[in-house]
Amino acid sequence: MGEPLHVAFASGLSGTWQIDSVTAVVGEGLPEAARLAVVEGWNSEIPPAAVWVVRGVTSHDRYVTRREHDLLAARQPSLGRADASRAALIPLRKSPAWWSLPQDERRSIFEERSHHVGVALEYLPAVARRLHHSRELGEPFDFLTWFEYAPRDAERFDELLRRLRATEEWDYVQREVDIRLAR
Amino acid sequence: MGEPLHVAFASGLSGTWQIDSVTAVVGEGLPEAARLAVVEGWNSEIPPAAVWVVRGVTSHDRYVTRREHDLLAARQPSLGRADASRAALIPLRKSPAWWSLPQDERRSIFEERSHHVGVALEYLPAVARRLHHSRELGEPFDFLTWFEYAPRDAERFDELLRRLRATEEWDYVQREVDIRLAR
Repeated sequence: MGEPLHVAFASGLSGTWQIDSVTAVVGEGLPEAARLAVVEGWNSEIPPAAVWVVRGVTSHDRYVTRREHDLLAARQPSLGRADASRAALIPLRKSPAWWSLPQDERRSIFEERSHHVGVALEYLPAVARRLHHSRELGEPFDFLTWFEYAPRDAERFDELLRRLRATEEWDYVQREVDIRLAR
Repeated sequence: MGEPLHVAFASGLSGTWQIDSVTAVVGEGLPEAARLAVVEGWNSEIPPAAVWVVRGVTSHDRYVTRREHDLLAARQPSLGRADASRAALIPLRKSPAWWSLPQDERRSIFEERSHHVGVALEYLPAVARRLHHSRELGEPFDFLTWFEYAPRDAERFDELLRRLRATEEWDYVQREVDIRLAR
């Protein structure tokens, strides 16, 4: 785990990724746009004329144990693989009820009852993932998760999302947008 | 636990609090200044000609269990008590080794071995406390802790800090500044 990395996802007319769809899963969506730029660094320039910009920061693990950490580290691929030409950006906000739970109860819902890590492990190394924390930045979302995968794994990725969205943890999701991209 | 609150601590010529001392406990200190303004809110104005400004965000609990949460909630006083005319601002940065530990090992050092909550509980309700997270803001510190107490409790507050600084958790502190204030 290195230093926190600030990442801005700016939609508009420029950027490496073409936006294929923007779907409101829970609550308010986000406007459609043509392309998405992924801008890393605290003081990086956002492309002009952005339609919307969401920001987050990579950070240390919040729930995983040593054992889970090591399992994930052994299997999870890095971003930017040559064949991973599909991506998803999933901004998500959890409810005040979630944030008022103490750590042990959030952990219990996250893993012992929703098996968040256990389910995700089944989709590695097909799906690369990077989590960005937004709640402490005054953003409208709490998390921005970025996924990359090859076109042949698109159905498995949809299956992963269906399984996570059916968990008790997702009862606490009060806003979720699903943005699909290709390059 | 409400919404995250952004707080800027701006030193300079204005502000409610008079700065009595600025002490480098571990690593680099901060410059001396006359007064400190505590500025709450995401878009609040920082007083002009600030000597230094450190920023943080209140957030949800990261380590405490339900039982510890309830014990703390029952005993901890709010900020702004009429007789709490002394304060301390303690900006602190932990090492990369700390942040690379998984949640269960950080929790274990924090409470099972360093008794952070257990020790702090002994000093309630004398010492009021508010923790601000800075690491995800790209700040030089990871945490800013603000304490308020009455002059009669100043020695007990020093004892609290001595006990915490002697714990295994503090082995991971690589920068700490101790700023004392009065109003």
